[in-house]
Amino acid sequence: MKPAQPTHVSYSAEKTRQFGIVFTTAYPRTGCMAAGTIHVNTLLHYVTTLPIAHISQKEGGTQIKLTIEFSDGGRALFKPMRHPRDQQTLKNQFYFTDFERHNAEIAAFHLDRLLGFRRAVPTVGRTVNITKDLFPLAKGDLLKTFFFSPEKNHCFHGKCSYYCDTAHAICGSPDMLEGSFAVFLPGDAEVPRVHWRHPWRRSYSRRRKAEWEEDDEYCASVKETPPYNEGRRLLDVVDMAVLDFLMGNMDRHHYETIEMFGNNSAPLHLDHGRGFGQAFLDEASILAPLYQCCVMRHSTLATLLRFHTGPERLSAAMVASMARDPLRPVLWPPHLHALDRRLNTVLHVTRRCLHPAKDPNKVIIDDFH
Amino acid sequence: MKPAQPTHVSYSAEKTRQFGIVFTTAYPRTGCMAAGTIHVNTLLHYVTTLPIAHISQKEGGTQIKLTIEFSDGGRALFKPMRHPRDQQTLKNQFYFTDFERHNAEIAAFHLDRLLGFRRAVPTVGRTVNITKDLFPLAKGDLLKTFFFSPEKNHCFHGKCSYYCDTAHAICGSPDMLEGSFAVFLPGDAEVPRVHWRHPWRRSYSRRRKAEWEEDDEYCASVKETPPYNEGRRLLDVVDMAVLDFLMGNMDRHHYETIEMFGNNSAPLHLDHGRGFGQAFLDEASILAPLYQCCVMRHSTLATLLRFHTGPERLSAAMVASMARDPLRPVLWPPHLHALDRRLNTVLHVTRRCLHPAKDPNKVIIDDFH
Repeated sequence: MKPAQPTHVSYSAEKTRQFGIVFTTAYPRTGCMAAGTIHVNTLLHYVTTLPIAHISQKEGGTQIKLTIEFSDGGRALFKPMRHPRDQQTLKNQFYFTDFERHNAEIAAFHLDRLLGFRRAVPTVGRTVNITKDLFPLAKGDLLKTFFFSPEKNHCFHGKCSYYCDTAHAICGSPDMLEGSFAVFLPGDAEVPRVHWRHPWRRSYSRRRKAEWEEDDEYCASVKETPPYNEGRRLLDVVDMAVLDFLMGNMDRHHYETIEMFGNNSAPLHLDHGRGFGQAFLDEASILAPLYQCCVMRHSTLATLLRFHTGPERLSAAMVASMARDPLRPVLWPPHLHALDRRLNTVLHVTRRCLHPAKDPNKVIIDDFH
Repeated sequence: MKPAQPTHVSYSAEKTRQFGIVFTTAYPRTGCMAAGTIHVNTLLHYVTTLPIAHISQKEGGTQIKLTIEFSDGGRALFKPMRHPRDQQTLKNQFYFTDFERHNAEIAAFHLDRLLGFRRAVPTVGRTVNITKDLFPLAKGDLLKTFFFSPEKNHCFHGKCSYYCDTAHAICGSPDMLEGSFAVFLPGDAEVPRVHWRHPWRRSYSRRRKAEWEEDDEYCASVKETPPYNEGRRLLDVVDMAVLDFLMGNMDRHHYETIEMFGNNSAPLHLDHGRGFGQAFLDEASILAPLYQCCVMRHSTLATLLRFHTGPERLSAAMVASMARDPLRPVLWPPHLHALDRRLNTVLHVTRRCLHPAKDPNKVIIDDFH
């Protein structure tokens, strides 16, 4: 099963400037975005040092995020810090009411890279000064939401469907605010993307369960449905499940691909603000695509085994990878321990698939992605 | 300055049943509600033991509360627990976005009684079973808001303007829920009340200040305005300020009096859910009526001095008073320490009023309330 080569498209200079750094010439080889580490590090340095020239609230989604435009016209998506790193998902919250975490966005980028996927948008931490960097650039409805709290911290809340009011403001200490900066992908108009409903999407309801939660044979019907019936897509969904399980992300309702790259290209790994919420609880159901379909890409298994046998465990690799982030330490240590523990679980689940299989090559798929 | 006698009104039997217990024959002597301790204790026992027959969401106000009707037709106002007792007012919250606390309602009743005001509605703690006591009685819009959280706790959120959604649900452990039960006052139709805007009301704005916060001579204009220009009302407002300062309640926007009792009757002390939020911070501005007007009722000062000199300090008296509440300990200990500390502050502020006064009888008013 070999992937089709991506369609070759000639970009305009403007498109290439941003897009070219992220979706590099490495694409055909890795099947996904993000060039060599040197390119990415250059990009991340740029995002953490360039002056901010414009800000606006990003439409869509339920929680506040800002589009940041730098002095040279480059853009990033900013998610602000709400809680300290050791704050777990609040008791009795659902995956769809949980706060987003800026450090989850940063850690997810590193995790995705270490797992060899390179499908997540390069994301880095940066501390901004609300009074100097954001407030003077805010306009209109966004500007109206800035205020000083009783503790004299500078705050704002924006306008959005969840947690955008005085009682849920984003506040500095007293001005300084941590946030994640994710390199902006070109808009849909410039580089159209295809939006896919995730086949293992949760119900986003307090009462209903999703079909896959009640039907152990669910994967059989997915396997018959394009684009999961051929090519790489199902393996990509399993990769995504591994990534999400390791960080405890239950909020994968949709995913996107780049239209011009066709169906045999990697899905983007976007929006990980709800990962790393519960360090002491492993949500096994996130692995449903793996244990219901019993397939995994060979390269993914090889990477997991490498982190399992060492010498460098996944937690240590994460610490090393994130060591240069300005917001280091990015993760609360129990989340690092959770990564090693959950990696063992993924391997255990994979073994349970392999054990009864007549042909292990039908479980571990050698497709060289 | 002697108070007018309250107008004598003959009640219907139905009115008298509830109202008569609360607004007792003791009224003319104490100038306020709540009979002898024996009556009140009987009432509180009744509220904590009678089966619940009907529930409905109480209209008005911003946060959820339920009207509870007991099997014998008596009613109480139920405010559910949201946070553990040691949870302080969340960082960067304003007094008008702070969560309400059920235990503040209970503690405020005891504090009001110990200070000799007896103007707060008898309030007691009770643990209810959401599944057995509330869910089977919920109807319509309220019923639709019941659900089980991911932790399998039974929850509901009701419909209201603040904190009434899935992300801010009231949840049991797994069914059991603490709440305050305040004896229901007869409705406006039966016993009309007069609603007064508090002259030292805060701005309820993130940016604006209230007039009294910027004008040290504010009291002069209040003193010229009915009903503060004569009779007991200004002294009652100072009493209320003392009560509120001791518990750190900044949310006194309105107060009410019983219409039939006329202007020379005590205001009710209602709605203390935002007291006892910050044990380590004393909000001096709550005492503005005291330090701007420099008047205090003699009996109030005598009570404060008694708790100051002992042998029983206010904190100890509170512990003793609340010792029989089913939710004991009602207060987190730092709030008890705060009561003693703040009592000293009230006395200090009063001394600062007395020191420059030519006639101390113009500061400490001997009106025998």
